[in-house]
Amino acid sequence: MRAEIITIGDELLIGQVINTNASYIGKKLSEIGISVARIVSVGDVEKEIIDELKYALDNFEVIILTGGLGPTHDDVTKNAICKLFNTRLVFNESVFNQVKEFLAKRGINQINEANKSQAFVPEKAKIINNYWGTAPGFLFEEGGKIVIVMPGVPKEMMGMMENFVINYLAPKSGENVIKQRVLKTAGIAESHLYEKLKDTVAEIEKFCKVAFLPSALGVKIRITVKAKNSSEAEKIINEAEEKIKTKIGKYIYGVDDEELEEVVGKLLAQKGLKLAVAESCTGGLIADRITNIPGSSRYFERGIVAYSNEAKIQILGVPEELIKIYGAVSREVAEAMAEGVRKISGADIGISTTGIAGPTGATPTKPVGLVWIGYSDKNETFAKEFRFGDNRLENKQRASQMALEILRRKLLGIEI
Amino acid sequence: MRAEIITIGDELLIGQVINTNASYIGKKLSEIGISVARIVSVGDVEKEIIDELKYALDNFEVIILTGGLGPTHDDVTKNAICKLFNTRLVFNESVFNQVKEFLAKRGINQINEANKSQAFVPEKAKIINNYWGTAPGFLFEEGGKIVIVMPGVPKEMMGMMENFVINYLAPKSGENVIKQRVLKTAGIAESHLYEKLKDTVAEIEKFCKVAFLPSALGVKIRITVKAKNSSEAEKIINEAEEKIKTKIGKYIYGVDDEELEEVVGKLLAQKGLKLAVAESCTGGLIADRITNIPGSSRYFERGIVAYSNEAKIQILGVPEELIKIYGAVSREVAEAMAEGVRKISGADIGISTTGIAGPTGATPTKPVGLVWIGYSDKNETFAKEFRFGDNRLENKQRASQMALEILRRKLLGIEI
Repeated sequence: MRAEIITIGDELLIGQVINTNASYIGKKLSEIGISVARIVSVGDVEKEIIDELKYALDNFEVIILTGGLGPTHDDVTKNAICKLFNTRLVFNESVFNQVKEFLAKRGINQINEANKSQAFVPEKAKIINNYWGTAPGFLFEEGGKIVIVMPGVPKEMMGMMENFVINYLAPKSGENVIKQRVLKTAGIAESHLYEKLKDTVAEIEKFCKVAFLPSALGVKIRITVKAKNSSEAEKIINEAEEKIKTKIGKYIYGVDDEELEEVVGKLLAQKGLKLAVAESCTGGLIADRITNIPGSSRYFERGIVAYSNEAKIQILGVPEELIKIYGAVSREVAEAMAEGVRKISGADIGISTTGIAGPTGATPTKPVGLVWIGYSDKNETFAKEFRFGDNRLENKQRASQMALEILRRKLLGIEI
Repeated sequence: MRAEIITIGDELLIGQVINTNASYIGKKLSEIGISVARIVSVGDVEKEIIDELKYALDNFEVIILTGGLGPTHDDVTKNAICKLFNTRLVFNESVFNQVKEFLAKRGINQINEANKSQAFVPEKAKIINNYWGTAPGFLFEEGGKIVIVMPGVPKEMMGMMENFVINYLAPKSGENVIKQRVLKTAGIAESHLYEKLKDTVAEIEKFCKVAFLPSALGVKIRITVKAKNSSEAEKIINEAEEKIKTKIGKYIYGVDDEELEEVVGKLLAQKGLKLAVAESCTGGLIADRITNIPGSSRYFERGIVAYSNEAKIQILGVPEELIKIYGAVSREVAEAMAEGVRKISGADIGISTTGIAGPTGATPTKPVGLVWIGYSDKNETFAKEFRFGDNRLENKQRASQMALEILRRKLLGIEI
């Protein structure tokens, strides 16, 4: 079963509102095995709505349409639908009672014309109740095609989807379910990842789909499977994951919504280790990410944002000569920062960053994007050099991610 | 001039990625008077891309297409474009040099096949340089139609839009323009803001549109104007802004994309003052935000994330008895933290946060969401109590925003 989603509203076209409705509906339909082939947004223009609906009816089995059902003058969806299905708007007593009841609950007892107009619905349609607002949804089913029309207010649309639409469509879909899994990697470029996985991908693409999605926090590998039922989909996806892990397992830090700070936090808590962080170019971002995780006070001792050289010397114990000789952005200072914050705080592990986030601060030998990341525990202290890009915020992101990734690998005994 | 936006990628259809690209492009085109009539998302399927492009070419003058240009096997946009425009992919030396240069800056000197494939571009097309990634964009102009193709990575697409596309299209458009301005407030609830502005909004809505958009960082007031040309739109929007400012000016910290950390940073730089921050519940978020601003090293001396009590005592000089008597989350400790970080660092101003971000850590008298924010300069030290919500990340956001807002008001001599 294939579907098209049509979202109506000028606010979508001029970029005033981001189309979260379409992604929500896309996700819900995928989960019950209906594959969304197309998403279209058009304005509140009758002809364009009708044209798009005709195209959708010619090509797909399910059409979900949202928006343009409000009581104001610019909402034209109902008329467009009536023309297309050769029906007319009729007053529906039961919808009218619902509208009155909904408003009464909010202390509104005076019903105006705009409210009343909500009770006019296409004669041929089946009504979908709206318990979250005043505009009813409706449904047409004809010749193997299903058209579902809902308001564009996210809360109302989501209420109808969860309360009615999903339950109505799921048994009709019957065939396939779509499942996805995202494997998140850090510390390897997309092209290198692809090189290492080319053959594996060719092999597993016989029974699923693989996509590479790069970002400042690393490359995500998304596996998509279509199968007869949920357990079969799970089986296929697990096999694909295993095959990928065999090749590049060490780069994968998490699955689906798992964040690196969460993974690292769990490892620290399990091992009963305390962490302290000394940041220069990341400016507090590492501490911020670590403390986003509930319960992080168990393993996070302190963070020092040593932006000035004085702070590096005074609270991290970095020897002044090191800064003089090698500069603040250097292997030596990164190591001294990591070791300093560990020793002074009494934590088990110290990590540090020092670099040139940009856009200013570069020197002939030290370009924007140069970052040293330091690590120190009771057995060893070292620092690694990275060259990121020229975007300040992205450099902070990337440096924070690599610092956490180095920590993850050390905690797991993976080579860096 | 009417436009269609085509966004390509399975991740959009299954709801894994929200289509922010389309709304960004829609907004940018509206601002230069090009009206977006239609937004379509389809998967990485050659035939569907071609069909949609044909429809768009038949109906609109401008077509903007994003996505499916990466170096991996699932990116099919380039082939689709070649078939449609009856051209072929040719190796472009100058693009290849750019790709190599881009990778070299990131320390990657080994060019693989996937990287090299980026340098194959449609023979007939004009190249749009990509300084933010490796996939070039391109442009076809034929028979009064303009087709622009860009990568789907938001940063790359936005770079090309701002660097090239808008400048290229703006002179060709020349019609009605839509302008928006956002006034950003902090430290006042939406309902209170609305009460103060009700009459003003009724008055200015005669010639423009006003919307209130609440978030964890405060309430934004958005003014939208449609006018014949840019200078007329500017005039109307300036008048509306003035009227709003007369009523609630002290709550407005910035306009449009201006962030509070940027506003505060400018004030500190102007006054030649140095800031130090001592954070507990915000966990580094304030330091992170401050150091997001280029040049912040001029006024940001250090940040201390004193998550443990030991850190508060050891590096901020908070007296141990204060924590014992009043608890770490208290007026007394917030004040001692702000004063401590200021004195020890030698900065002019110290700010601090201590609170219960949640979900754990609450006591019968100290609920989740309770936060004390401290401020200290050479003349005074004080702390203010806030009650935020029960969402950890939002509590961090709100506390960081209020700390910066208190700083802003102190720097401007506005009552708190």
